[in-house]
Amino acid sequence: MFNSLHEECGVFGIFGTKTSQIADYVYFGLHALQHRGQESCGIVINSDGVFSHYKGDGLVSEIFSAEKLKALGQGNMALGHVRYSTTGGKDINNIQPLVIRHIKGNMALAHNGNLTNSEEIRKKIELSGGIFHGTSDTEAIAYSLVANRLTSKSTQEAVTKTMSEIKGAYSCVIITATSMIAFRDPNGFRPLCFGKTADGAYCVASESCALDAVGAEFVRDIAPGEIIAFSKEGIRSVTSYCPAKEKTSMCVFEFIYFARPDSVIDGVSVHHARINAGRFLAKEHPVEADTVIGVPDSGIDAAIGYARESGIPYGVGFIKNKYTGRSFIQPSQTQRENTVKLKLNAIKESVNGKRVVMVDDSIVRGTTCAGIIRLLRNAGAKEVHLRISSPPFKHPCYFGTDIDSKENLIACKYNSTDQIAEVVGADSLGYLSVDAIHKIAFGADVCFCDSCFTGSYPIPVPDNHTKNKYDTKIGDF
Amino acid sequence: MFNSLHEECGVFGIFGTKTSQIADYVYFGLHALQHRGQESCGIVINSDGVFSHYKGDGLVSEIFSAEKLKALGQGNMALGHVRYSTTGGKDINNIQPLVIRHIKGNMALAHNGNLTNSEEIRKKIELSGGIFHGTSDTEAIAYSLVANRLTSKSTQEAVTKTMSEIKGAYSCVIITATSMIAFRDPNGFRPLCFGKTADGAYCVASESCALDAVGAEFVRDIAPGEIIAFSKEGIRSVTSYCPAKEKTSMCVFEFIYFARPDSVIDGVSVHHARINAGRFLAKEHPVEADTVIGVPDSGIDAAIGYARESGIPYGVGFIKNKYTGRSFIQPSQTQRENTVKLKLNAIKESVNGKRVVMVDDSIVRGTTCAGIIRLLRNAGAKEVHLRISSPPFKHPCYFGTDIDSKENLIACKYNSTDQIAEVVGADSLGYLSVDAIHKIAFGADVCFCDSCFTGSYPIPVPDNHTKNKYDTKIGDF
Amino acid sequence: MFNSLHEECGVFGIFGTKTSQIADYVYFGLHALQHRGQESCGIVINSDGVFSHYKGDGLVSEIFSAEKLKALGQGNMALGHVRYSTTGGKDINNIQPLVIRHIKGNMALAHNGNLTNSEEIRKKIELSGGIFHGTSDTEAIAYSLVANRLTSKSTQEAVTKTMSEIKGAYSCVIITATSMIAFRDPNGFRPLCFGKTADGAYCVASESCALDAVGAEFVRDIAPGEIIAFSKEGIRSVTSYCPAKEKTSMCVFEFIYFARPDSVIDGVSVHHARINAGRFLAKEHPVEADTVIGVPDSGIDAAIGYARESGIPYGVGFIKNKYTGRSFIQPSQTQRENTVKLKLNAIKESVNGKRVVMVDDSIVRGTTCAGIIRLLRNAGAKEVHLRISSPPFKHPCYFGTDIDSKENLIACKYNSTDQIAEVVGADSLGYLSVDAIHKIAFGADVCFCDSCFTGSYPIPVPDNHTKNKYDTKIGDF
Amino acid sequence: MFNSLHEECGVFGIFGTKTSQIADYVYFGLHALQHRGQESCGIVINSDGVFSHYKGDGLVSEIFSAEKLKALGQGNMALGHVRYSTTGGKDINNIQPLVIRHIKGNMALAHNGNLTNSEEIRKKIELSGGIFHGTSDTEAIAYSLVANRLTSKSTQEAVTKTMSEIKGAYSCVIITATSMIAFRDPNGFRPLCFGKTADGAYCVASESCALDAVGAEFVRDIAPGEIIAFSKEGIRSVTSYCPAKEKTSMCVFEFIYFARPDSVIDGVSVHHARINAGRFLAKEHPVEADTVIGVPDSGIDAAIGYARESGIPYGVGFIKNKYTGRSFIQPSQTQRENTVKLKLNAIKESVNGKRVVMVDDSIVRGTTCAGIIRLLRNAGAKEVHLRISSPPFKHPCYFGTDIDSKENLIACKYNSTDQIAEVVGADSLGYLSVDAIHKIAFGADVCFCDSCFTGSYPIPVPDNHTKNKYDTKIGDF
Repeated sequence: MFNSLHEECGVFGIFGTKTSQIADYVYFGLHALQHRGQESCGIVINSDGVFSHYKGDGLVSEIFSAEKLKALGQGNMALGHVRYSTTGGKDINNIQPLVIRHIKGNMALAHNGNLTNSEEIRKKIELSGGIFHGTSDTEAIAYSLVANRLTSKSTQEAVTKTMSEIKGAYSCVIITATSMIAFRDPNGFRPLCFGKTADGAYCVASESCALDAVGAEFVRDIAPGEIIAFSKEGIRSVTSYCPAKEKTSMCVFEFIYFARPDSVIDGVSVHHARINAGRFLAKEHPVEADTVIGVPDSGIDAAIGYARESGIPYGVGFIKNKYTGRSFIQPSQTQRENTVKLKLNAIKESVNGKRVVMVDDSIVRGTTCAGIIRLLRNAGAKEVHLRISSPPFKHPCYFGTDIDSKENLIACKYNSTDQIAEVVGADSLGYLSVDAIHKIAFGADVCFCDSCFTGSYPIPVPDNHTKNKYDTKIGDF
Repeated sequence: MFNSLHEECGVFGIFGTKTSQIADYVYFGLHALQHRGQESCGIVINSDGVFSHYKGDGLVSEIFSAEKLKALGQGNMALGHVRYSTTGGKDINNIQPLVIRHIKGNMALAHNGNLTNSEEIRKKIELSGGIFHGTSDTEAIAYSLVANRLTSKSTQEAVTKTMSEIKGAYSCVIITATSMIAFRDPNGFRPLCFGKTADGAYCVASESCALDAVGAEFVRDIAPGEIIAFSKEGIRSVTSYCPAKEKTSMCVFEFIYFARPDSVIDGVSVHHARINAGRFLAKEHPVEADTVIGVPDSGIDAAIGYARESGIPYGVGFIKNKYTGRSFIQPSQTQRENTVKLKLNAIKESVNGKRVVMVDDSIVRGTTCAGIIRLLRNAGAKEVHLRISSPPFKHPCYFGTDIDSKENLIACKYNSTDQIAEVVGADSLGYLSVDAIHKIAFGADVCFCDSCFTGSYPIPVPDNHTKNKYDTKIGDF
Repeated sequence: MFNSLHEECGVFGIFGTKTSQIADYVYFGLHALQHRGQESCGIVINSDGVFSHYKGDGLVSEIFSAEKLKALGQGNMALGHVRYSTTGGKDINNIQPLVIRHIKGNMALAHNGNLTNSEEIRKKIELSGGIFHGTSDTEAIAYSLVANRLTSKSTQEAVTKTMSEIKGAYSCVIITATSMIAFRDPNGFRPLCFGKTADGAYCVASESCALDAVGAEFVRDIAPGEIIAFSKEGIRSVTSYCPAKEKTSMCVFEFIYFARPDSVIDGVSVHHARINAGRFLAKEHPVEADTVIGVPDSGIDAAIGYARESGIPYGVGFIKNKYTGRSFIQPSQTQRENTVKLKLNAIKESVNGKRVVMVDDSIVRGTTCAGIIRLLRNAGAKEVHLRISSPPFKHPCYFGTDIDSKENLIACKYNSTDQIAEVVGADSLGYLSVDAIHKIAFGADVCFCDSCFTGSYPIPVPDNHTKNKYDTKIGDF
Repeated sequence: MFNSLHEECGVFGIFGTKTSQIADYVYFGLHALQHRGQESCGIVINSDGVFSHYKGDGLVSEIFSAEKLKALGQGNMALGHVRYSTTGGKDINNIQPLVIRHIKGNMALAHNGNLTNSEEIRKKIELSGGIFHGTSDTEAIAYSLVANRLTSKSTQEAVTKTMSEIKGAYSCVIITATSMIAFRDPNGFRPLCFGKTADGAYCVASESCALDAVGAEFVRDIAPGEIIAFSKEGIRSVTSYCPAKEKTSMCVFEFIYFARPDSVIDGVSVHHARINAGRFLAKEHPVEADTVIGVPDSGIDAAIGYARESGIPYGVGFIKNKYTGRSFIQPSQTQRENTVKLKLNAIKESVNGKRVVMVDDSIVRGTTCAGIIRLLRNAGAKEVHLRISSPPFKHPCYFGTDIDSKENLIACKYNSTDQIAEVVGADSLGYLSVDAIHKIAFGADVCFCDSCFTGSYPIPVPDNHTKNKYDTKIGDF
């Protein structure tokens, strides 16, 4: 499945000794996290309290040339961010990290997640004279940090106070003149971990794959509710907000789709969790078939799990065109036809005359899925049994995932899986159960949020769910 | 003379009825003001309170394509800005207009000038929890406006309060959901005027040449200290801050160099003022010569004035290369040689074997001037008498002009004009007197600031004069 | 394996009725063939004999925007080309299709392959007054066609004569004012096939995957030695040069590495041939192990074949970063380290503590391979058994594949596979035998060229093998 | 006047000792010749017979960055070209210098002018098997040179033979492995001169202003019909084709409009010739008036001449916007209005209430002229007397000037100057006489071509005058 669900962000910070290559580390770290946000990115370097930064709309490799990285200069700390913009649209002021040049010192902030009370915070600040430049939640965190810093003895104390004010999902990293501080919301909605390079620098990253990319050894996950500060004095952890495991609610969709399979999150391999999802799927929805194939790239692992559990041979059903970049266009005449085939092609040899189990991670609108199944039919598949390694999407996410609006979700439009199967053209359809989803990452240090499937939210959520709310506000200043 | 002194900004606002071409007006207006700032530009459109904007580093014609203009959509108000960045460097957050999305309504602000108390304002706001995103003075004005708006009945009242807080040079235009408001500091350091299009739209511009460019008829200058609001109710002028003419201190260098000769500022034609400067120069520093030539482009008018007064024939001494854009490079080997000749060439026919009066508007470091005189010598000029249509620069400007630091100013390094003449290679040198400078725009509605020549500032100025002050601040947030 | 061996070209032509979307077809066809050449591309449109064309350095999606495609206009024929430049470097004159505006009519030519007698042809033409603009072989074919056209009754006759002059590998498509003609060298070194769209247009393509991309039904391969002309009169095939199957020598590396797995070439599925290669590999080089993994993307199929034949479970060993585009950089400090890890990461879960069979399609220099094996070791692999689905490379290719020079080829530097295994850090190493390679595409309509493995060339080759030969020629014109 | 008439080219070559800055010289030389062609440019470097080159669509400063120049490497000869494309449109193959990689040695060719027998040459070459890649005349010269080189003992002999074959206007420079050769057609239609740098390098340029730009001393013009070769043996001049002065016919429009005023061509200063044109104009068409103004940039000099002769004071009537680059757009709504005002503005002070003599170099369609006069009227001019420093355009040019087609020329549409005056809105109109035009460059080493005014061509011209003739040819190859 592709292009239907979006994670909002990835963060990467580093704290070490002064080097001219500090920006390179962040570049490689962000490159490894690029799947978490492809719309914009930024890097800020801290050279003994003087901050230099650069940001832009595009992939890390598009925005940062060797010259740009070099121009950022040397430093002992750095922070980077990749972003997929939901709230606030493409406003350049929303690109992170946010860099705050304040009389009390410079500060930069990178955030993955979504606050549930950002509108309240924003309203309060604006009514007391504050100015928001962008439209992202992140600026609300920044304001809270600044306000609390003015009444605190230390930045760490300001972070602690801020965490009592902000609600929702936040995996954050900040750098100040002298320290790097990471903090994760008590639910642990989004992942965050840290590692150590051979040179003794500490790296904080959204996923462990970014630590691998820069050659840092994984140390451990940052716990839900934990504040961890890196400074000359060493590492200091504050766990006063850390809840019991049962109170945590990590986004299970990180395992199913968002995270990279080579990452290990909260103690469990993403690849392994997907293999497990496939195994459970085989148990819950067995079928007689000749081959199991996965929809690239995110359906592959679950397909292998299904094949292993069912004993049906695993095969390669599709080739995905590697060159479909952001500038790839779909001119007019082809819009009526099957646009899926421009990116994906079936391997006739693998499916012709066969009963095929096709595994994918999710169905959103159903149109892409229907197009893919049509590819299999055209390639001669006798039967297509669709197996989805997650339950049906039915509810909005308030914690950082951009799910399509209800009227577009196929699982909201149709009551039964049989109907959906018919719409997408499958001979049969099986979704993974909500029960099973909680077991795919067996042994994890956290519990999971399943609210997009169940509608049962772990914390209070706002009444209305609007995107780009600030863009349509009218009033006489 | 070229590339040595810089104006910081140009503003253009329009208030009219809803049209899809509102962005075009601003585009053409800014294009006419491009000489006031070539580093970045931006346009914001107000469509019944919903603001769309776009900005970037570069010339108006580079940043805005036909598609970009179209994408800004229709509106009934719009605001644009061209900028030359001195304070704060190239930070993208400094590009104007600043767009404020506030709970009380959207607001956009464009500013030409420089505050003298911005650091105090900034300090106060930061210590009360405010966050500055860029490093420009303009953000201080925005904060003041927002804070005052919260305690005022109207935007106009907020502007009035803000004008009691901010000090220095400011010619500003703001647009809100329902009105456009222009205001100019009581000294009137920078120009600001307005006009009316055939369609009945009102345009505010830094110079009248921008009104000509959009086909608007010049109505009048905005007086020093005046606030003027354009709304559905019509035009409303507040003159409570307007001082007596003797208290005003318009930047005289606008007439000598910055403004376009086809502009009329505070009642006087810029072209005419330059002709006058040349006439006075001829009276104060006569010389026997065969021809009078001007250094393009800004020395031409004064040269014609000198020729008229002296009776010495006016000639064309130089050709300036029209294709020397921002991407033009000066590779290594030529740096030792006369780089002036890449942009300027003498016309041998005009100067060979002649005694030449060469008129320019100013000398900053003297190196460019020396290079130009060398061109004339190489072309066979027998004598070169340099005449400068302004007094020597000796003091920093705090009101929006970017003058080189004292140690680079040739008039600070040498005590006598004879010494300077020798350094630049002229046979004689004459500067216009400070007395004369006050007479070149005879009949103007304002008096003039001559502090860069005399060091006598019309209002208190800060103790230290640092650029990019925020970039080197160190402290532990 | 990535970035080590390069195919030189892909071609796509279409002949149909006049439509404004003719350029879109070529765009999508070339996009599907992008793996055959990523350095430059071009499209030419024939609108009743008037040709319009556009070309540039970059991927199809980078060079052609929707506007560019539209600007090419409508037509009834079109021709496109993707290129990886070996001979002649990045000379813009080498970008294909070549467009010839000749008094006898316009002609465009796209070529995949490499001539063995291009230098002789070039010499002859230059000595008779001809001028070559680029340095590619393709221009020699164009000259031959033009010269023969002047003495022939038809273009088809000119093609026939040309085929008696040019030697080597060529899969060509030309369009003239009224016809599209495709011709393939008698050895059939490079693939070429054609299909038919629902609208009745004929498409010629290097690989069948491009036919799928535009929704054309595969008709058949163009036989080695065949000339096939598409015109208003229909299809006409000339088979006078077609040899017996035993005389053909299709490049077997098309099956192993170059072609897309979803293509069917000369009657055999590329995916199937790779699965077969894996099966033979398992038979020839069995080993006790816990998992079989493939190096993405081209080692995956053979790994599945190996797993199926050996019964050892197939696993996913690596994640390849999808965002490593052409602008991705590798700054200085990382060059000493394992640069492979920036593009590839091992999945610890899959290999930790296991005996791993790692399947790849080839080894060129060995450095990339060593880096990949190191990834596995670092991820905890207990043993790494390397299996290569082709024989060792030892000889240059004269037919269109860009193989590294002998001194860089690891199989030339070391005598035994044991030595190579040691150098790359594998516990054991097995190459597929030359015998087996001839069997992987069992049932194909062609025989295979194995000269890069054996040094036994199917046709005479030039004495010296130099790249960019024209760039260093010195002489006094 | 602007944007109405176009010169086609400028050339710059250098022959010296090996240096890494050879490309810089050409860069600066072309920059000085940019007014002769703004659409594309190219530079080729000769490093002991190995040629490297780069070219593109755009200004010299846009196409060549410091890196690009450096990448061209060191050399002892170099050749550059700026081009305005008339024949053949924007085909990238037409960008010069043409680089020929021939078995007899490399050769590069840059050409300014237009052949009158290129179609015949082209036809002959194509029918003997030659292939033209572009559509420019220059390629015909290249073919002739190559063919003649094969039957000659030296390049110089080949040039001599070529000059007996090609007809029309050509000022050419070629570089071979060992020499630089410049040659100019016997009529001397286009200028060509050479100079010497302080380092002893020889430079050939279209105009002397380019020699000034690189610090080379002007040596002399290359005579009509002269071949001049620069090699290790020194300079060698062949004058066998040089006619008597009465047989020459230099384009007089080079003096009136094309060339830069600081250039000296065939012994006469361009600036001086324009001053003269203004003087003759004053004598032929006197009028009572208060001020004389010129239309920038090319009307200024003639205005000064008119003022000097008539005694009417010279004034500055217009300001031209310096920032109207190639990306400047003119959105829809303004097309109905006076678009001239976006680029030009009148200085009210100079013309208000006055009787104005407005001098321009030519009128093509009349629309721009009418717009400019309207600017003056709106600025308050009481009378506008238009004086044109050349006779009316009535006939096509076959020698390298791109004149609008007859149906667009205002002098062809209307019979009397009175009618034209009325159409453009002038109170009176006077054109310079054809007699006078021959006297403006009094003392020149050449006679002049006036065929665009008289229709009397100095050499036979083709029957039909078509642009882009090759683009519409249809035929079955």
